[in-house]
Amino acid sequence: MMANTSNPLGSRVTPVTVTQLPGLNTLGISMARIDYAPWGINPPHTHPRATEILTVLEGSLEVGFVTSNIENRHISKVLHKGDVFVFPVNLIHYQRNAGKTNAVAIVALSSQNPGVIPVANAVFGSNPDISNDVLAKAFQTSDDVISNIRFKF
Amino acid sequence: MMANTSNPLGSRVTPVTVTQLPGLNTLGISMARIDYAPWGINPPHTHPRATEILTVLEGSLEVGFVTSNIENRHISKVLHKGDVFVFPVNLIHYQRNAGKTNAVAIVALSSQNPGVIPVANAVFGSNPDISNDVLAKAFQTSDDVISNIRFKF
Amino acid sequence: MMANTSNPLGSRVTPVTVTQLPGLNTLGISMARIDYAPWGINPPHTHPRATEILTVLEGSLEVGFVTSNIENRHISKVLHKGDVFVFPVNLIHYQRNAGKTNAVAIVALSSQNPGVIPVANAVFGSNPDISNDVLAKAFQTSDDVISNIRFKF
Amino acid sequence: MMANTSNPLGSRVTPVTVTQLPGLNTLGISMARIDYAPWGINPPHTHPRATEILTVLEGSLEVGFVTSNIENRHISKVLHKGDVFVFPVNLIHYQRNAGKTNAVAIVALSSQNPGVIPVANAVFGSNPDISNDVLAKAFQTSDDVISNIRFKF
Amino acid sequence: MMANTSNPLGSRVTPVTVTQLPGLNTLGISMARIDYAPWGINPPHTHPRATEILTVLEGSLEVGFVTSNIENRHISKVLHKGDVFVFPVNLIHYQRNAGKTNAVAIVALSSQNPGVIPVANAVFGSNPDISNDVLAKAFQTSDDVISNIRFKF
Amino acid sequence: MMANTSNPLGSRVTPVTVTQLPGLNTLGISMARIDYAPWGINPPHTHPRATEILTVLEGSLEVGFVTSNIENRHISKVLHKGDVFVFPVNLIHYQRNAGKTNAVAIVALSSQNPGVIPVANAVFGSNPDISNDVLAKAFQTSDDVISNIRFKF
Repeated sequence: MMANTSNPLGSRVTPVTVTQLPGLNTLGISMARIDYAPWGINPPHTHPRATEILTVLEGSLEVGFVTSNIENRHISKVLHKGDVFVFPVNLIHYQRNAGKTNAVAIVALSSQNPGVIPVANAVFGSNPDISNDVLAKAFQTSDDVISNIRFKF
Repeated sequence: MMANTSNPLGSRVTPVTVTQLPGLNTLGISMARIDYAPWGINPPHTHPRATEILTVLEGSLEVGFVTSNIENRHISKVLHKGDVFVFPVNLIHYQRNAGKTNAVAIVALSSQNPGVIPVANAVFGSNPDISNDVLAKAFQTSDDVISNIRFKF
Repeated sequence: MMANTSNPLGSRVTPVTVTQLPGLNTLGISMARIDYAPWGINPPHTHPRATEILTVLEGSLEVGFVTSNIENRHISKVLHKGDVFVFPVNLIHYQRNAGKTNAVAIVALSSQNPGVIPVANAVFGSNPDISNDVLAKAFQTSDDVISNIRFKF
Repeated sequence: MMANTSNPLGSRVTPVTVTQLPGLNTLGISMARIDYAPWGINPPHTHPRATEILTVLEGSLEVGFVTSNIENRHISKVLHKGDVFVFPVNLIHYQRNAGKTNAVAIVALSSQNPGVIPVANAVFGSNPDISNDVLAKAFQTSDDVISNIRFKF
Repeated sequence: MMANTSNPLGSRVTPVTVTQLPGLNTLGISMARIDYAPWGINPPHTHPRATEILTVLEGSLEVGFVTSNIENRHISKVLHKGDVFVFPVNLIHYQRNAGKTNAVAIVALSSQNPGVIPVANAVFGSNPDISNDVLAKAFQTSDDVISNIRFKF
Repeated sequence: MMANTSNPLGSRVTPVTVTQLPGLNTLGISMARIDYAPWGINPPHTHPRATEILTVLEGSLEVGFVTSNIENRHISKVLHKGDVFVFPVNLIHYQRNAGKTNAVAIVALSSQNPGVIPVANAVFGSNPDISNDVLAKAFQTSDDVISNIRFKF
């Protein structure tokens, strides 16, 4: 049975952390199931307290992460059913359904409470806003582009 | 004496980590001096292995960080000479010179090798590129906007 | 596709630790797939360096662990497809296929190299043997019973 | 003065952990004195949170531990007064008085609350029972043998 | 603006630890500003829970630490404005203003609550006293010398 | 059998750390036997990497430690055969034989390589010397007293 992926990203994360399973307290591990509609993505994000190991249960996924500055190397791979991949602790990473059918993955994380920081939400969807000037300089673009992106978050 | 801040961001980080000072090996700490031209910024970034504590030596700084999803709370403050602020481990944070004169800060980090991941560089300046489709969905914008931003990195 | 479970225990563990996936080095996580024939068991064992979180992919499993002395409480549960359970670090635990069809589980462990100590193999199958006298006193039985059990390992 | 060793194992452990000495809280260490009647044993067990270092004060001891699967190597040695031995964290280990006189040892453990899991008690003396079928398969023996051993615990 | 250094040591430490800044809780870092009058010292001390990294903001400092027994090596250096030095965790260390003008340093410590143990205060100024006999033997001097030193603390 | 305690302190420490027992590597524990002649002392010292737990095997000991600044509380107790005491990590502590007969203790330490910093040796016996001026100010005494104490180290 697929989770509901009717949202702009085309994916759904169903976590089992210490919030859902209190017995995980002090044990340093948690997991999640991720469902992806065709071409759905789990957008670039970090987990501030955990490494993640992913196993593909159904379908195919393009997965990747970016190493730290100043290399910013993008390591990516297309995975098929049964393949396993690891996202090192705190690096920005993503997945995309690379096929025409639904995809499903199981991920495990090395913390009972891994946290998640989607880059776009943290930067463009914070509450209150980060000032346009900071973001325009950071992304080397205009105030208008920043305002337009922010409008969706 | 100011460091050279003639660059698009208007700031310069001079680090002292285990790379510059080998005696820091195994000791769990490092530091950096940051110089800011008027309105210069140290753009949104994370340190994958460290908390950061900042002391303002000269001038005034607007500083902020964003908490993890789903709150994405933006905590910010204007600091003056002698003020101290802390950026919790792995959260996205930034500084901006909020005044008309140069500013200088000393920061300490809780790792001999804290690493740095500037969000814009990791997402738009990775090598090779993250595909336009992933970024357009993540930032809920068009391929054209993504291509334009990427062009600067 | 099922793994081969034609062995006395009726189960097969397929691990992905730092031995199989060197990129897990320093990252504090690993996983395994476990296949169970009907009534197959994964016998009582400990992982000296890891907590384990288990997700049932197919079939039904009876799972349990025993708390430390002097309570020795046996916590057990029957799990169905999609259920999740946790085995706390270093406690003796087991799984048994509780149904008439094959069962499959994915487990994640909070170490790149969790290790495994099956109680029966460690005690009765060590090389060289632990002396009969020690085991007869420990299990409060006769030398003959010890010798008979040891014969299979 | 000897502790009372009139029990089926012929040994007595007198612990000093955070339960007995609250000042050990947060300090990561504890100790115990162990008395052994002639041929008395401290049966195969693990400490889920501690390495153990043992010093013989009186008499002679045969000591041993078993490494993890699939080697299951049994490392053992006969110790005399003043000898020191270490049992690595989470491995199954035991001691036996190897002489005709009483023996005494002091052990220290790298946790304020090391815990103890005697293999026989955890597997055959849990409450409630682990089902006979699981244990018969695990020890590759009959239900009758399992029931007979369980009867003593 | 200088802190008040009118005291027998000729120095003043202004700390920012979790006591002054509660937001440092769980974050593993803190800092302090140290002001030194000409020839003022920060006397030999240890931090029981932290490494320290020091940056000179004004003036010149002679700094040093002593390695553990049996070497007891004294590593020292004269630092000028902008220089950085590290005192490894738990080693006895000190600073002295080596010039004729005031000096200022910023230090960071790898704990939210590093603690400080000035050797002279701990040994000669404890409450109640350590007995004269212990200190006379330890410092290989007479009871009278011990009493005279203790009188000041 | 007593160790040789014919030295100015009247005590002898016989350590078993990773230097003497390589199997302790990575295991986080070590031990030592300490012999004390009547009125012998183990002078004020710290272990930079370990808590210590002490058991009296023979005789009586006065033991104590001093808490960190600014309390500098001296916690002490007279121990007899069989008593156990703990010295918290990094605090300055000592023992003194409080009786007319030899005393023996077993100590365990929460590190494979605890290190030892005898306060008097570090401060007065470093190589090269800490300057007289620093020590005279720190101990609030004269250069002459410092020179006289240093002469013995």
